[in-house]
Amino acid sequence: MPALGDTTRGRILFGGDYNPEQWPEETWPEDVRLMKDAGVNSVTVGVFSWARLEPRPGAREFGWLDRLMDLLHAHGIGVVLATPTASPPPWLGRLHPETLPRDADGRVEWWGGRQHFSHSSAVYRRYAAAITEDLAARYAGHPALTLWHINNEYCTADHGDEAAARFRGWLRAKYRTIDALNTAWGTAFWSQGYDDWTEVLPARHTHYLKNPAQVLDFRRFTSDMLLECFTAERDIVRRHTPHLPVTTNFMPLFFGQDAWRWAEEEDVVSVDLYPDPRDPLGAQHGALVQDLTRSQAGGPWMLMEQAAGAVNWRGVNHPRPRGLNRLWSLQAVARGADAVCYFQWRQSRQGAEKFHSGMVSHAGERGRTYQEVRQLGAELARIGGEVAGRDVTAEVAVLHDWHAWWAAEQDGRLSRRADQPTLLTAWHRALWEEGITTDFAHPEHDLSGRKLVVVPQLYLLTDAAIDNLRAYVDGGGTLVCGFLTGVADEDDRIRPGGVDARLRELFGIRTLHEWWPLDEGETVGCDGFDGTLWSEEIEPVDDLDERIDYLGGELDGLPAVLRQGRAWYVSTLPEPAALRALLGRIAARAGVRPVLDGLPAGVEAVRRGEVLFVLHHGREPVTVAVPGVHRDLLTGAVVRDEVRLGRFGVAVLTP
Amino acid sequence: MPALGDTTRGRILFGGDYNPEQWPEETWPEDVRLMKDAGVNSVTVGVFSWARLEPRPGAREFGWLDRLMDLLHAHGIGVVLATPTASPPPWLGRLHPETLPRDADGRVEWWGGRQHFSHSSAVYRRYAAAITEDLAARYAGHPALTLWHINNEYCTADHGDEAAARFRGWLRAKYRTIDALNTAWGTAFWSQGYDDWTEVLPARHTHYLKNPAQVLDFRRFTSDMLLECFTAERDIVRRHTPHLPVTTNFMPLFFGQDAWRWAEEEDVVSVDLYPDPRDPLGAQHGALVQDLTRSQAGGPWMLMEQAAGAVNWRGVNHPRPRGLNRLWSLQAVARGADAVCYFQWRQSRQGAEKFHSGMVSHAGERGRTYQEVRQLGAELARIGGEVAGRDVTAEVAVLHDWHAWWAAEQDGRLSRRADQPTLLTAWHRALWEEGITTDFAHPEHDLSGRKLVVVPQLYLLTDAAIDNLRAYVDGGGTLVCGFLTGVADEDDRIRPGGVDARLRELFGIRTLHEWWPLDEGETVGCDGFDGTLWSEEIEPVDDLDERIDYLGGELDGLPAVLRQGRAWYVSTLPEPAALRALLGRIAARAGVRPVLDGLPAGVEAVRRGEVLFVLHHGREPVTVAVPGVHRDLLTGAVVRDEVRLGRFGVAVLTP
Amino acid sequence: MPALGDTTRGRILFGGDYNPEQWPEETWPEDVRLMKDAGVNSVTVGVFSWARLEPRPGAREFGWLDRLMDLLHAHGIGVVLATPTASPPPWLGRLHPETLPRDADGRVEWWGGRQHFSHSSAVYRRYAAAITEDLAARYAGHPALTLWHINNEYCTADHGDEAAARFRGWLRAKYRTIDALNTAWGTAFWSQGYDDWTEVLPARHTHYLKNPAQVLDFRRFTSDMLLECFTAERDIVRRHTPHLPVTTNFMPLFFGQDAWRWAEEEDVVSVDLYPDPRDPLGAQHGALVQDLTRSQAGGPWMLMEQAAGAVNWRGVNHPRPRGLNRLWSLQAVARGADAVCYFQWRQSRQGAEKFHSGMVSHAGERGRTYQEVRQLGAELARIGGEVAGRDVTAEVAVLHDWHAWWAAEQDGRLSRRADQPTLLTAWHRALWEEGITTDFAHPEHDLSGRKLVVVPQLYLLTDAAIDNLRAYVDGGGTLVCGFLTGVADEDDRIRPGGVDARLRELFGIRTLHEWWPLDEGETVGCDGFDGTLWSEEIEPVDDLDERIDYLGGELDGLPAVLRQGRAWYVSTLPEPAALRALLGRIAARAGVRPVLDGLPAGVEAVRRGEVLFVLHHGREPVTVAVPGVHRDLLTGAVVRDEVRLGRFGVAVLTP
Repeated sequence: MPALGDTTRGRILFGGDYNPEQWPEETWPEDVRLMKDAGVNSVTVGVFSWARLEPRPGAREFGWLDRLMDLLHAHGIGVVLATPTASPPPWLGRLHPETLPRDADGRVEWWGGRQHFSHSSAVYRRYAAAITEDLAARYAGHPALTLWHINNEYCTADHGDEAAARFRGWLRAKYRTIDALNTAWGTAFWSQGYDDWTEVLPARHTHYLKNPAQVLDFRRFTSDMLLECFTAERDIVRRHTPHLPVTTNFMPLFFGQDAWRWAEEEDVVSVDLYPDPRDPLGAQHGALVQDLTRSQAGGPWMLMEQAAGAVNWRGVNHPRPRGLNRLWSLQAVARGADAVCYFQWRQSRQGAEKFHSGMVSHAGERGRTYQEVRQLGAELARIGGEVAGRDVTAEVAVLHDWHAWWAAEQDGRLSRRADQPTLLTAWHRALWEEGITTDFAHPEHDLSGRKLVVVPQLYLLTDAAIDNLRAYVDGGGTLVCGFLTGVADEDDRIRPGGVDARLRELFGIRTLHEWWPLDEGETVGCDGFDGTLWSEEIEPVDDLDERIDYLGGELDGLPAVLRQGRAWYVSTLPEPAALRALLGRIAARAGVRPVLDGLPAGVEAVRRGEVLFVLHHGREPVTVAVPGVHRDLLTGAVVRDEVRLGRFGVAVLTP
Repeated sequence: MPALGDTTRGRILFGGDYNPEQWPEETWPEDVRLMKDAGVNSVTVGVFSWARLEPRPGAREFGWLDRLMDLLHAHGIGVVLATPTASPPPWLGRLHPETLPRDADGRVEWWGGRQHFSHSSAVYRRYAAAITEDLAARYAGHPALTLWHINNEYCTADHGDEAAARFRGWLRAKYRTIDALNTAWGTAFWSQGYDDWTEVLPARHTHYLKNPAQVLDFRRFTSDMLLECFTAERDIVRRHTPHLPVTTNFMPLFFGQDAWRWAEEEDVVSVDLYPDPRDPLGAQHGALVQDLTRSQAGGPWMLMEQAAGAVNWRGVNHPRPRGLNRLWSLQAVARGADAVCYFQWRQSRQGAEKFHSGMVSHAGERGRTYQEVRQLGAELARIGGEVAGRDVTAEVAVLHDWHAWWAAEQDGRLSRRADQPTLLTAWHRALWEEGITTDFAHPEHDLSGRKLVVVPQLYLLTDAAIDNLRAYVDGGGTLVCGFLTGVADEDDRIRPGGVDARLRELFGIRTLHEWWPLDEGETVGCDGFDGTLWSEEIEPVDDLDERIDYLGGELDGLPAVLRQGRAWYVSTLPEPAALRALLGRIAARAGVRPVLDGLPAGVEAVRRGEVLFVLHHGREPVTVAVPGVHRDLLTGAVVRDEVRLGRFGVAVLTP
Repeated sequence: MPALGDTTRGRILFGGDYNPEQWPEETWPEDVRLMKDAGVNSVTVGVFSWARLEPRPGAREFGWLDRLMDLLHAHGIGVVLATPTASPPPWLGRLHPETLPRDADGRVEWWGGRQHFSHSSAVYRRYAAAITEDLAARYAGHPALTLWHINNEYCTADHGDEAAARFRGWLRAKYRTIDALNTAWGTAFWSQGYDDWTEVLPARHTHYLKNPAQVLDFRRFTSDMLLECFTAERDIVRRHTPHLPVTTNFMPLFFGQDAWRWAEEEDVVSVDLYPDPRDPLGAQHGALVQDLTRSQAGGPWMLMEQAAGAVNWRGVNHPRPRGLNRLWSLQAVARGADAVCYFQWRQSRQGAEKFHSGMVSHAGERGRTYQEVRQLGAELARIGGEVAGRDVTAEVAVLHDWHAWWAAEQDGRLSRRADQPTLLTAWHRALWEEGITTDFAHPEHDLSGRKLVVVPQLYLLTDAAIDNLRAYVDGGGTLVCGFLTGVADEDDRIRPGGVDARLRELFGIRTLHEWWPLDEGETVGCDGFDGTLWSEEIEPVDDLDERIDYLGGELDGLPAVLRQGRAWYVSTLPEPAALRALLGRIAARAGVRPVLDGLPAGVEAVRRGEVLFVLHHGREPVTVAVPGVHRDLLTGAVVRDEVRLGRFGVAVLTP
């Protein structure tokens, strides 16, 4: 199978979405000049070109794209060619209103924005296949073509009638009999028993709480339908170019797609990443998404989109201060990216995203943004050969699963505060600040090579996953689990006792009496720290190996943290410093070491292959101890035992 | 007419909703064993069983229910049998989409939750009647049957076309002529004059403020239509079992039903009560709802649902800490409950409420929740004989009326802060903290036996109600009225002068110049305290008997509190301690005494028949003076002059 | 052309909306008695009388209005007669549901409120024309008639199918070809290219951000369609009464109408003004709206509606404290109003606005509100002769444009905090506090007579406007521009460089590198003050004439304020005192003086013709220096060199 290496060929890809149809063709040569000047070696073309390519049903206008591909190729710039199916032309909605999605309230999502297609619409799928077929046929042999990019940020749902019909088909394939569906959905509750498949609906608006198993299956269905759209187009382009890899761009930690499942269907995993430059934990958020994407890719991955400056969808959108674009780009490379790309090459003058930055901002070539992009391009070229294709290895895995997330986000839950992103972020942050490199893994993945496995929260765990965790611990691994893990089975059925018996046994929980979620601003005292967000009334077994107790309050004297052998259970969310200390202690005991010892606050160290990245997220200069002698690939300087980093400074060191 | 006593027969009912259709039939004997062990003597069956009983149109599957009734009867557990009409099976919506309600925006409320029926749908009503008929016919003679429970928490509205037609019929019956409707609704305002009945609509979405009289009548209509649904089913079951009482469960202080009117149609008044265990005023909220329910029942009532632990519909849902379930259950008994029941017996493993606690929690028999339920069952059995059927008497009545509430909650009002629950709570709290037992009453009820009548706020008062209040004062009663009372007549027409002239005369108000609502966080100085929420610019008569003035600000020197004879008017909401002191002083003057003198903070005392309940809502032990010699029914101990209560402690004392 | 003077005839109009159809006809003589007593000389009749005039299709009931007009005329009270088209009778919606508007989500706006008409509905327009025609024909010769009032507060939008058809027609007239539309809307972005006019939609709900140029044109279209409704009725009444002026009432600083364009179509500009009595800047808000309205009128204008007391549409609605109604009414006169009118004469007892105050409140004749109205009426009569028809002149113009506002309020913008009302208010406040009288102007107006032109923010500027600003500065004028001005052209296309090159040249901006919006609560240090809301990374030309730099932070040392010749650019929003000082300094340099020097805080001075108004917005007495000898028209007193003003005091001084 083709892979990212077939596109990168030993370089780090550098570039971005290029939408020259927004500009007069006379500006294209200027674009190419600036690209070359900035070291751009790859651009993504055609993401939103459907109306240009097919201005009316069945028409084909490829001339402009022919000229563009030729121009780029003539200048040695590779093309990531996109199928344009994320935004159908207006004529599709007008001729076929049934292609428009409906939300849970029945509202139509009209054209005039983007993504106004129903994943379930046969008509949409037919038109999408046709344009994909013709695009692939035409450019299969074009020498500029290096990678296929299918659609864009798949993310829509549909609650309309055609989606309902497909949902029924999906359910029928899954459950075979309506009785099996009734059992899985627990329809005995609230008189929801279905007598016939025709009665089953998408998760539409209801008077009160919806059936959570129905919602869960509807989320699974939605992810699967979008994936069907993806694989249908992928298969078409693959037929034409079996030698070229195919990707679609994820959104970071996006709720709507089971990205583990999707990644299996991609040749290349790519992601769009937009940390808020003002977020004090922006760099950690980046690291989390990068670690997750690398883990999905099983190796190098693509940063398909980031912003050279501001985005335009927050309430207040801040630019990247001087140096931050370089720092965050090199962080992505450090954590496995073999492509540093942007939305978009040239900032638009019109349309909904004209305040979203570009590599060439409205200020143009003189602007700070482009000048920094240019510097970065040169640096990436300098380090590419030593870095591209190399792996990042981690002894620690953090477990994450979309099905657990989907199930946990049900209406009638105990706390709206304990959501998956909050918990993933808190636990990953503890490890990141401790300087420990982490992978992510699915709970049914092979964990045997890991020294430490961390489960921030997996509300839903299959039997196979539970057995996997137990086998991992039995095999000598160290496991740390956060609260509300292993509560539900794959149908969102609460397991007897509130937590699966096998897990209770593993952790030394005799009885889980009650969950005690905490209010906003509330903490619970523990021996040595404060817990936040959650607590639990646990009666442990008598012979726990280790425990940290709640102090004071209703849970006084009950265990907040339990250890039985190498299995830890943490029934609250310790404040950040406490969670870091706890995980650091457990990691050390499990033989896991930070990449570098004694890192100053705000400094990140990651090893990729033989190369050590040291990244400074602060503005005041620091000195970082790096034992031994290294060469800094960025400067060529020799570094002995320590490296000095200025504001947002980075060192890329080889032994 | 049958009454609650026909069901309780001298006991306190103890049990809850039992939904065994969610569990394999093999678990039923285990349920019954645990019920017996916990002293459960009554369970509610069938509330959401429609799809099980009628899996397709016209089918009947009673076998499982036959076996269940027999099993329960065999173990001496009585059955409250519910009509299953609160959640129609999916096939009803599919075959008859017109049975689905629409909200004001036209959104359909689909099946997949519950209560997806239009009260106005003839088809729904026909199917509901048919299943009710067959259910009643089949179980009329069953020895386990003790009470009928109709539907569940009636609460829906419908703005669709069939509801529109019924609304027109309802209005026609009320007004006879379209001119009368035009007059009542004040349609001369904003050119809303109707020429014909066909033009009249439900209170659907409008561009700007809706006609408040139309909204008021639509609320009345909605309550009446739901009541028609109730009485239709009631009449069916009554025909089969004239000897058995009938109820439907209210929600606490629920906006959507005129509960005074509804209570008249019930043999037994029952309520669902879910105070937040974290609410510092949770116990007072409970007392308020209990007092209101008792007043609607005119004697003993049923606590049909409460939670043994957490609910699942708040943002963060807290369990009941150790002892609180017992305390709040005994509080309900103290205030007149002859039944202490839960939603639900066994916590569900599936469905939208699986995080809502049960008497048997996910932790099962060993869990703290069940163990405390078991203790409570034993205690209720111990005190039942002395308590069940006995009355709570009160010399004070707090007036409340749904029509006044509905009218006050109009869009274009002066303050969104001064809502009915806030005011009822504030005034009831003052009396509750003062240790004074209160009833509630409708403003047209006979008040002649009361020493004190309190009106937190009744924006709308009929002429009859105003005359009733005057007659009460004329007859020697003491009346205290809060602001914005008597402002509108029954058509929501502002009375000349802004407050009815008879009330102005009663209180000594010459001119009400302006209403001065207060902002969030704003207070108004008064002589001796601060007022909140509201103030008024009043010119009093010259010869007021007593007044407390505003100090400073725009109202400086004008009266905040006015007394003329035995009639008091309070034009602001005094801060809690001040309102308590004011009402305490007025009550004392009216000859009203607390149940016990010198109660410590957080201790509640209520007398039911001869039995004195002393309830401690705090965690630190207290000693309560109880003059004389009593026996504690819970412990059998003899109590002389004082009783010592630990955390959440309760004493149930007989002379 | 007829003008306001034809109605006022040397007096200040005093009165309000009079809706006697809400009252029994017997009360009319009492109304007239109180009107005469209060000095009322003008009432507005018929605003919401359609259902009364045409109770069923084609019917006409004018008798009551005949009697009313005669009665008013008999007592010398002039009538502003309204076309009743703002609220069609229920029968129109029932017979023609297509006349009801739909919002972007497709929700119907039903009757039962007001303004439930689609501006695009041919049926609505036909019925509106017919009733207007008959009304005009009937009362054209009535001696009471003094002014036509068309509809009321035009403000609706429609996204339905008939509006879609009209939108297409409007676009076709504007763009001629679909290619031109594609170019203007930038439909190359996100594949929105239209092949045919039939594909174009109103700005309906979309999955993600809408095309901002489409939204902008839809706002323009909406304003134009409403204007078509206005001019159609205006032309009808004009035909009957060519000698009488016509108006429609604006809402203050209302988003939905291009009021510059509308004002051109009116004979009289009128506005409704409802500052919050609790707003510490309520008086400044009033001044802003008054200045804007006067500028639109090009001379005297009408205060068509204000509240004598509270309104009813805020969360908490406060009355006007004693004296405030007089103060704010005289402020309007000072700033050019020749009419002081209210919604409404007598507070309604029924309907959606019965808590909205009237000149005669629920308290009636004795009430404080009416008593203060009466005093005001007498005072207005006293000063009218010296004031009515006189101009207010200003050397300063603040620029405002609806198209710029509409464009700036797009979804995908950089900051939701930097909205037009916030910025207009901040900049106008600085001048108002400095005692400088300001006009407003459109950016393409002739500015040559101004000493100072201030642009708080005009995100969109046409080429003509930019050239106008440059010509103004070239001609010797002083220009101060706030940030994000001149960014977009008239199609909302970002100008190269992010700010138009001509403006960059004017201000000495070499490169605008990045916009740096600020978060809530965030400030940016500048040399001498703090900036709020926004900042910018600007590289200036080398030879700036003057600059104030950012201090500290990412922008340290870059210019916050730039001056090149007489052109100033302010790239942040200085805190209020700093903006006032800055503008004061610039104004002084430009030769602009306050009306009075050394005004105490909270005192406002305005000159109208020869008459000097001094208005005190505080409660504590102050002394104001007024050099020379004046006579106070209110009291007749002679004032030498200083005037003493009590709480909310006003002096109206002639030389």
